[in-house]
Amino acid sequence: MENDSVLDKLHEECGVFGIFDTTLSIGKCVYEGLIALQHRGQESAGIVVSSGDLVTVEKGMGLVEDALADLDHLRGHIGIGHVRYATTGASEVQNIQPLLGSYKCGNIGLAHNGNLTNTLDLRKDLEGQGAVFETTTDSEIILHMLGRSKEKNLEERIKKTCRCIEGAYSLVIFTGEMLIGVRDPQGYRPLCIGKTKHGYILASESCAIDAVHGTFLRDVKAGEIVIIDEQGIHSSYISETVNNQHTCVFEYIYFARPDSVIDGQGVYESRFEMGRQLARETQYEADIVMPIPSSGTAAALGYAQESGIPYMEGLVRHHKVERTFIKPNQEARELAVRQKMDVLPHIVQDKRIILVDDSIVRGTTSKIIVDILRQGGAKKIYLCISSEPIQFPCYYGIDTSVQSELIAYGRSLEEIRTYIGVDRLYYISHDGLAASMKAVHPSQLCLACFNGHYTSNLPKEVESGDTYDLQ
Amino acid sequence: MENDSVLDKLHEECGVFGIFDTTLSIGKCVYEGLIALQHRGQESAGIVVSSGDLVTVEKGMGLVEDALADLDHLRGHIGIGHVRYATTGASEVQNIQPLLGSYKCGNIGLAHNGNLTNTLDLRKDLEGQGAVFETTTDSEIILHMLGRSKEKNLEERIKKTCRCIEGAYSLVIFTGEMLIGVRDPQGYRPLCIGKTKHGYILASESCAIDAVHGTFLRDVKAGEIVIIDEQGIHSSYISETVNNQHTCVFEYIYFARPDSVIDGQGVYESRFEMGRQLARETQYEADIVMPIPSSGTAAALGYAQESGIPYMEGLVRHHKVERTFIKPNQEARELAVRQKMDVLPHIVQDKRIILVDDSIVRGTTSKIIVDILRQGGAKKIYLCISSEPIQFPCYYGIDTSVQSELIAYGRSLEEIRTYIGVDRLYYISHDGLAASMKAVHPSQLCLACFNGHYTSNLPKEVESGDTYDLQ
Amino acid sequence: MENDSVLDKLHEECGVFGIFDTTLSIGKCVYEGLIALQHRGQESAGIVVSSGDLVTVEKGMGLVEDALADLDHLRGHIGIGHVRYATTGASEVQNIQPLLGSYKCGNIGLAHNGNLTNTLDLRKDLEGQGAVFETTTDSEIILHMLGRSKEKNLEERIKKTCRCIEGAYSLVIFTGEMLIGVRDPQGYRPLCIGKTKHGYILASESCAIDAVHGTFLRDVKAGEIVIIDEQGIHSSYISETVNNQHTCVFEYIYFARPDSVIDGQGVYESRFEMGRQLARETQYEADIVMPIPSSGTAAALGYAQESGIPYMEGLVRHHKVERTFIKPNQEARELAVRQKMDVLPHIVQDKRIILVDDSIVRGTTSKIIVDILRQGGAKKIYLCISSEPIQFPCYYGIDTSVQSELIAYGRSLEEIRTYIGVDRLYYISHDGLAASMKAVHPSQLCLACFNGHYTSNLPKEVESGDTYDLQ
Amino acid sequence: MENDSVLDKLHEECGVFGIFDTTLSIGKCVYEGLIALQHRGQESAGIVVSSGDLVTVEKGMGLVEDALADLDHLRGHIGIGHVRYATTGASEVQNIQPLLGSYKCGNIGLAHNGNLTNTLDLRKDLEGQGAVFETTTDSEIILHMLGRSKEKNLEERIKKTCRCIEGAYSLVIFTGEMLIGVRDPQGYRPLCIGKTKHGYILASESCAIDAVHGTFLRDVKAGEIVIIDEQGIHSSYISETVNNQHTCVFEYIYFARPDSVIDGQGVYESRFEMGRQLARETQYEADIVMPIPSSGTAAALGYAQESGIPYMEGLVRHHKVERTFIKPNQEARELAVRQKMDVLPHIVQDKRIILVDDSIVRGTTSKIIVDILRQGGAKKIYLCISSEPIQFPCYYGIDTSVQSELIAYGRSLEEIRTYIGVDRLYYISHDGLAASMKAVHPSQLCLACFNGHYTSNLPKEVESGDTYDLQ
Repeated sequence: MENDSVLDKLHEECGVFGIFDTTLSIGKCVYEGLIALQHRGQESAGIVVSSGDLVTVEKGMGLVEDALADLDHLRGHIGIGHVRYATTGASEVQNIQPLLGSYKCGNIGLAHNGNLTNTLDLRKDLEGQGAVFETTTDSEIILHMLGRSKEKNLEERIKKTCRCIEGAYSLVIFTGEMLIGVRDPQGYRPLCIGKTKHGYILASESCAIDAVHGTFLRDVKAGEIVIIDEQGIHSSYISETVNNQHTCVFEYIYFARPDSVIDGQGVYESRFEMGRQLARETQYEADIVMPIPSSGTAAALGYAQESGIPYMEGLVRHHKVERTFIKPNQEARELAVRQKMDVLPHIVQDKRIILVDDSIVRGTTSKIIVDILRQGGAKKIYLCISSEPIQFPCYYGIDTSVQSELIAYGRSLEEIRTYIGVDRLYYISHDGLAASMKAVHPSQLCLACFNGHYTSNLPKEVESGDTYDLQ
Repeated sequence: MENDSVLDKLHEECGVFGIFDTTLSIGKCVYEGLIALQHRGQESAGIVVSSGDLVTVEKGMGLVEDALADLDHLRGHIGIGHVRYATTGASEVQNIQPLLGSYKCGNIGLAHNGNLTNTLDLRKDLEGQGAVFETTTDSEIILHMLGRSKEKNLEERIKKTCRCIEGAYSLVIFTGEMLIGVRDPQGYRPLCIGKTKHGYILASESCAIDAVHGTFLRDVKAGEIVIIDEQGIHSSYISETVNNQHTCVFEYIYFARPDSVIDGQGVYESRFEMGRQLARETQYEADIVMPIPSSGTAAALGYAQESGIPYMEGLVRHHKVERTFIKPNQEARELAVRQKMDVLPHIVQDKRIILVDDSIVRGTTSKIIVDILRQGGAKKIYLCISSEPIQFPCYYGIDTSVQSELIAYGRSLEEIRTYIGVDRLYYISHDGLAASMKAVHPSQLCLACFNGHYTSNLPKEVESGDTYDLQ
Repeated sequence: MENDSVLDKLHEECGVFGIFDTTLSIGKCVYEGLIALQHRGQESAGIVVSSGDLVTVEKGMGLVEDALADLDHLRGHIGIGHVRYATTGASEVQNIQPLLGSYKCGNIGLAHNGNLTNTLDLRKDLEGQGAVFETTTDSEIILHMLGRSKEKNLEERIKKTCRCIEGAYSLVIFTGEMLIGVRDPQGYRPLCIGKTKHGYILASESCAIDAVHGTFLRDVKAGEIVIIDEQGIHSSYISETVNNQHTCVFEYIYFARPDSVIDGQGVYESRFEMGRQLARETQYEADIVMPIPSSGTAAALGYAQESGIPYMEGLVRHHKVERTFIKPNQEARELAVRQKMDVLPHIVQDKRIILVDDSIVRGTTSKIIVDILRQGGAKKIYLCISSEPIQFPCYYGIDTSVQSELIAYGRSLEEIRTYIGVDRLYYISHDGLAASMKAVHPSQLCLACFNGHYTSNLPKEVESGDTYDLQ
Repeated sequence: MENDSVLDKLHEECGVFGIFDTTLSIGKCVYEGLIALQHRGQESAGIVVSSGDLVTVEKGMGLVEDALADLDHLRGHIGIGHVRYATTGASEVQNIQPLLGSYKCGNIGLAHNGNLTNTLDLRKDLEGQGAVFETTTDSEIILHMLGRSKEKNLEERIKKTCRCIEGAYSLVIFTGEMLIGVRDPQGYRPLCIGKTKHGYILASESCAIDAVHGTFLRDVKAGEIVIIDEQGIHSSYISETVNNQHTCVFEYIYFARPDSVIDGQGVYESRFEMGRQLARETQYEADIVMPIPSSGTAAALGYAQESGIPYMEGLVRHHKVERTFIKPNQEARELAVRQKMDVLPHIVQDKRIILVDDSIVRGTTSKIIVDILRQGGAKKIYLCISSEPIQFPCYYGIDTSVQSELIAYGRSLEEIRTYIGVDRLYYISHDGLAASMKAVHPSQLCLACFNGHYTSNLPKEVESGDTYDLQ
C-alpha cells in the first residue's frame, strides 16, 4: 500500500478490525484484515490477541508489513487490530493502538476510529478524580471511564461511557471472553459485521471481511453495541431514543476502498454515479475525459460513459513507496508530486481535457498537476470535482487542514479557478451529490465539511496538536 | 515502485543510466534516474561515481530506495547506475552492477542491460589465458576483454571487444575521463541520449532523462558507440557494415514505462493502438471493456475508444510492496495474486466483459483473475491479448520461463482458452501488431519470442542458472 | 557492556538516573549516566526529558547503545532515565521505564529501582476505585496513587503514597518544575546525590555521577525525599520515625560497579577485604590464587595479598556480546559458558588452585568452570566464596531463582562441594563478611537471602511472572 | 569481542581459518573459529564454503556476529573464513575476504593474513598483461597470479606464485577438492594445523582450533605449503632453500590471544615472563603493581610474582562495544578512553604504582590513563613496558602509525617520560625480551619495528591508503 502523504488529500485517521473465532489463526487474520484497511492509516499498526487469561501484543510504527514483524507469538481466539494516522516519531510509540488495560474486571483492549469532541472536559474531570493518562490519545479517556464506571458488567459500563462521550467513535473492544463493537449514535465512521465459519468479524469496511474470506452480514447501526461471545452475537443500544444517522460523506467520495459497501451503498458505484452526474450537470464539450489518478478514476469513467467522450489516461502515477511522511518544505513537496505523476504528451497534446478528481483541499497538488498537463501540451483543462467545496474543518476523525488553508474557504469559484490555473472549474451540486448515493438518504450523511452543519457539539477549543503537552 | 514478482509476467533484466556533468550533484542524479527505471529491475541497484582519480560506490540488494541508503559520499562528475533482476540472495552481493575494475589504463566501471549468447566460449577462452572471474555475470567477460585488449585507447578496445561478443547489450561505461554508451548491432535493448545544461545523459529509457530534468536528444543507434568527455560528444561504430536493427517488441508491449519513447515510437501510443487494432479485429459485442490492471490498461482504453463499448474498471489492484521475490509454492502464489486483485461485483455482475491484457506467459495468473471475475458474477469473459502468443524463450535479456512452461508452446488456441477458463480468447494478429507501431518498421523488431526467428547466434547450451558453479 | 545472562548470577533489576541542570545537554547526560549503570539492567532502557511544558521520550529494547538511537530530539532541563532487567519480548515494550503520565497537576515521569511487596492488595484496591493499568509493572501503582492522592502538592502526595507501599524502592521522579528522589525507609537499593556546576544529579550509584563529571555529594538517606528545583535542593522524610536501614548486602558483594561508593563504603574495597578475610579464615596451602573472572577478581586479589600466595589468571573470559537473553536449553547454556571461558593450561597445570568467586546461585556455571579447569590439568581446586550461602529468594528487586533451584537451599556444604566437583569449598563466615565492610554496620544490611530475615512484609503470593495475566 | 579502536594500540590486520571435514556443519565451524580470532580483525568478516561444485558465501561489515547473520545456506565440506581490519565504509564491501574466483581449473577461494611488499610492480605487470582488478586488496594479486600461471596443478601454481610475491602472507586457499595452507618463507604471521575427528583445520592461532574442539597438531613451517584433501594431508615447500624464520614478535607481546601457542611458545607464558624480567631489570620499590587493563595484565602478574609487590587492579575497564571505528577528533578519542577506564581511588590513593603495559605506540592513551591515575590520587607512577621502543613502521601486516607519529621515533627516553607524565619509564631490554620466549630463538623473530632490520624487501613506495585510486 503506498503512502499518499505528499498529495493534498484528506486523511482518514484510523481503521479497526476484530475477530472472535476459536478455530482460526487469529493473529494472521487480524493482520490480513489490517492489510485490507491499510489505506485508512499508514503511520502505525497494532494487534492484540486474547486467549482468555493471556494477552499477546504486536505493535510498531509504519505500514502494517513493516510494523508487525512477528505474528507467531500471538495466540488466542479473540483479536483486535488498528491502523492509524497521526504525527510520527519514536516518542509516540506509547500512542499506538489498540490500547490495553487491566481493570477491576480483568484485561481490556480497545481500538478506536474517530475523534471525540468533549475530551478536554472529560479529561479534566477524570484527572480531578485521580486518573493518570499514559498516552495522549482521546481513546484513553474511554478506557478510564470504562474502568471507573460503577456498573456491574462491561455492556452497562460501555453504555454509561458512551452517554458521556461526544463526537465520532467506531470502537472494537475485547476482554477475556468477548469481542464488542460500538458505533456512535451518529454513525460517523463505518463499522460492519462479518461471519466466519465458526465466529464473527467486526471491521471498518467490508473489504476487510472479504480479505479474510468472511461473509458480510450487515453494518453496525448508529448507536448500536454488538456483543460477540461463545453464546453467539447479540445487540444492545447506547440510548433508547433513535438518533438520525450521519455517515461521513467522504467515505463514499474518497476514503473507503472502492470494493467496500457502507450502509448498503457500494463505494465504487457512488463514485461512478457522481461522475455521470457531473457529466449531466456540466455538459462540457471536450476531446477526452481524464482522471487525476487514482482518486478521480471512478468518477471519470462515469463521466465518460454518460457523456460519450472518450476516457483516456494521460497521467501516469508511479506507485513508489514514500518513506517520509512530512516533506520538509513546499519545494520538496512539489518535487515529490512531480516524481509521482508523469504526463503522456501523446495523449494530452492539443486536447481539450475534462479532468476529474474527487476533491480539492488546499489546491496545491491540483495546481502542480495542471501545470504538468500544460507542459504536456494540453489545450484546455476543465476540472470537475465530485464533491462540494470543502470549507469547514472536520472534528470527527478526518485530518482536514486548518480552515484558513482550505482553498474553498472564503474564496469564490473564480478565485479558485484562477489559483489552480484551469480553463473551467466545476464542483458537483448538492442535489447531484445526494442523488449519486441511491441507498443512503442525504439526511443520513454528515456534510459538515461542506456546509458547517456539525451534528454534535464541537470541542471547547481545538486541540493544539499531538505533542505531549496536553492541557 | 511495486514488485510484480507474484504476477505471471515477463521480466526485463536491467536498466542502465549514466551522466557526465561537472555542475550537478551526480550521485543524486543517478539515483533519480534509477528510480525512474525501477520497473526494469527490482532486485539490486548500484551507483558508481568517478571524480577522475577517485571512485565512490554505493550498492545494495532490493529496490533503489532500500539498496542505496547513502548518497552523500558519492563525489565526482561522471556517474553510472544499474538496476537488476536476477535470483536473489546474500551470496549474490558480488554480482551487483555496475562492475568496477582497475586495469592498465586506470579505473573502469560498467553497467550492462541485455544478455550475451556466446559466454561459454569466451569465458573458457579467457580462463585459458589466465583470467580469474570474481562474479558470475556475463558482463564481467566484457571487463576482462577490455582489460586484455592490445588496442591503445578504450574506444578501440570497446570496438574490438564488441566484435567478439554476441547477443544483447546496451552498455554504459565510465573511466576517469569519459562516459561511454554502447548499443549492440541489433539494438535489442533501448538506449538513448539526453542533454543537461552542462553535460549529457545516457539512459535505457527516455523517462529517466525526464526524471532528472534533462532534454531528450535521440536514441543511440544499433551498433553505435557514443563517447562523452570534456570536449563534448562524438560517435563511432562497432562495424562499418550497417546492420538491420531488431529492437525487442516487448519494450513496446509491456516493459518500458508508458511515458517513454523508444526509437521514435511512443510506448503508450503503441499500446493504445494495439487496443484499437484488437477492437477492429475482434468486433466483439459486450457490455464493458476492462483491463487487467495495470498491464492491460492502455490497450483496453484503445479498445473502448475504437469499439464505443464503455471502459470500466472492475478489478482493483492493491499496490502493496512484496518483500519476498520467490513465493514458496503455487498455493502461496495464488494467495498473493488474490491479495493483489479485488473484484467490484457492482461493475462485473451479469456483464459480458472484454478483458484486455498485454500477454499470457504461463497462464497461471490469468486463470486466477478469471476465477475472481466469475466469483464476482461476470456473465461472459472475452480475453483479448495485445501480443502474439509467446512460444519461444528469449536469450537477449528477458526472463521468459523455460519453453515447456509457456502456455502457448505446443497448445492450440482452444486448449489455452479452456485452461484459462474464458468464453473467448483472441491474440492480436501479426500484421495488426506491426501496424500499431507507426514509427518502427516490423523488420526492425525482434519478434523471436513469437516466431522463433532469432537474429543472432544462440548460446551453445542454455545456462544452467545463476549459481556459482558456472562451467 | 557485555551481557552476563548465560552465567549463573544474581541479577540486579534496575538502575535509575536523574538530572536537573539548565545549562547542560540533558539527553546526552542521562545517556552517559545510563551507560555507567548498564550493569544494573540490560534488557531495556529509556530516557524522558522535560522542558517544563513539553516532554520528549526515547525508549527501546536492549543495551543502552542499541535501545536509545536518537538523542537529538530530547530537549529540556530535567531528565530521568532507567535501565531494566525483565523477561524480554516485543510485547513488553509498554513496560519500558521511565513511566510517563499526565494527571491533575501536569506531567509526571517515574523511574523505579526495587520491588514492591504489597502490589496485589494495592492494585486490587486501585482497580476497585476505577483505575486502569496499562503496564504490568509494580511501578505503575505508584503513578496511580500519586494521581489519586488528595494532597495539594506532589511532595505530600509522595509521602502519602510511600506510607502505603511496602518493599524496596529507589525512585527518581520528575514534573515540569522539579526532580525528586525517594529512597524507601529500609534503603534496600542505593541512591545518591551529585552536583553539577549549575544543578544536581540523582543516581543509583556514584559511578554514574563520575561518568557525567559531577561531584558526589552524599547518599539519599533511607526514608528521605529529596526535591530539586530552581530554588535548589531540600529534603523531607516519609515518616518522622527513624527506621533502621537495610541496604542490600549484594550491592557490595557483586552488583555495584567496583568504582562506586555506597553509603560511605567503597565497593571494590569491601570485595578486596572479603578476599583477605577468606584468606584468614581458610589458611589453605596452594600454588596460586585465581578468580573466576570477572566476579571474583577483587576478592582473589585480597586473598593473594593476605596469604602471600601468587595471584594468577588461568581463565580467560571473552567479552563477546550476547544477543539473546534466554538460552534455549541446558546444553546451549553450557556451550555459551564454554565459549566465554578459556583455560590457560600453562597456568593451571598440576597446580593447587584457590579459586575465588563472589557467590553460587544454582551452581551450574561453577560446575562447568571447574570442569574446564580440570581439563586444563588443575591438580586441586579449593573454591572460596565471598558471600554466605544463598538460601532464600529476594523480594526486594533481585532476580534470584526460585528457592528450590538455589543449590544451598536444603543442601549440606559437602553436598554442594560434591555437586560442583571441587576438592574443598568454603563460604565466608557471617562475622567475616560483616567485618569486611568497615563503614557499614551489619545491622544496617539486608541479609535476607542468607538468613531469611525479611525486613518488611512479604508479598501475599509470589507473583507468577511477567506475563500480562496479573492477578 | 570488544573493539579496541579508540585505544592507541597496534592492530593486527587479519585472521584466517580453514576446515576440511565431510562430517561436520562447516559453516558453523568456520563461524566459531572466526569468533575465536575476532581480536585479529573487527571490521569485516566472511565465510565461503565449497561442496565441490557449488560455493556458498556469507560476508559483511563489522564484528563476526553482526557481519555473518545467516549460516544456514552455507553447505559443503570445505570452508574458509577471514576477519579483517582496514578502513571502513560501505564502498569497501567488495574488499571483504575471502576472495572468490573462477579460473581455468574451477573455483578458488582465498583468505590472506599479512601484507605483500612488492604489490606495485606485480600489479603493474599483471595489468600490462590484461588483468582487471576488482578489489583494492593486495590479496587479489595472488588470485590473478594463480589464474595466470602455466603450471598444471594448483600446488605448482602456488609455488610459482609464492616465488614472485614478497612480504608477509599466511594463506588459506580452497578449491572444489582441497584445502591449502601457505606460510611465507619468513613465517611472519602464524598459521597452525589442527585435527578434527574426520578432517583437518588450518588457523591463524591455536585458540581457534580449541574453539571448534579440534586437536592442535603443529604449526605450519615457514615456507611450507600444506595440502589437505580426501587422501589426507601432505606438505610441499615454496623453495628448497631453508629460510631463517622471522615470526612477528608482537604476536607474543600483544596480538595473539593469551591461550594460543605459536611456534611452540605459549603466549600467556611469554607475557608473564616479560613481566618477571621487567621486575628483575627494574628493581623498583613501590606499593603495588598494576596493569593497564587488559594489555598489561599478564606482564603485571609476572612482575608482581617476581618482585613480591602486591598486584592490585586500580583501573576498571568497561567492555562496552564501540560502534564507530574512527573517532572524529582528539577530544572525542580522549572522552572515549575516559569512558573505557575508571580509576578506583581506594586502590591508588597515595600509592607508589608500578604500572605495566605491553607497548607505547603514539603515547596518547598512556598519557590519558596516567592523568586518570593522578586524579585518583596516585603518588608515584613507574611505567614498565614489556616491549622495546617501537621506532619503525611495519610492512608485514601490522597497522602501525606513520613513523613520525611513533612517540619513540627520534625521542629520548626522558622526552617520552615527560610527555606521558610518569615519574619513571622503563622499556624491557633486548636480551630480557629475548629471554622471555624460551621456545623461540631471538634470531627467529622479526624485530623490525624495534630495530628497523627488515627481513625482506620493502615496498617501492609506501602505499597511499586504502582508497580506490591505486596506482
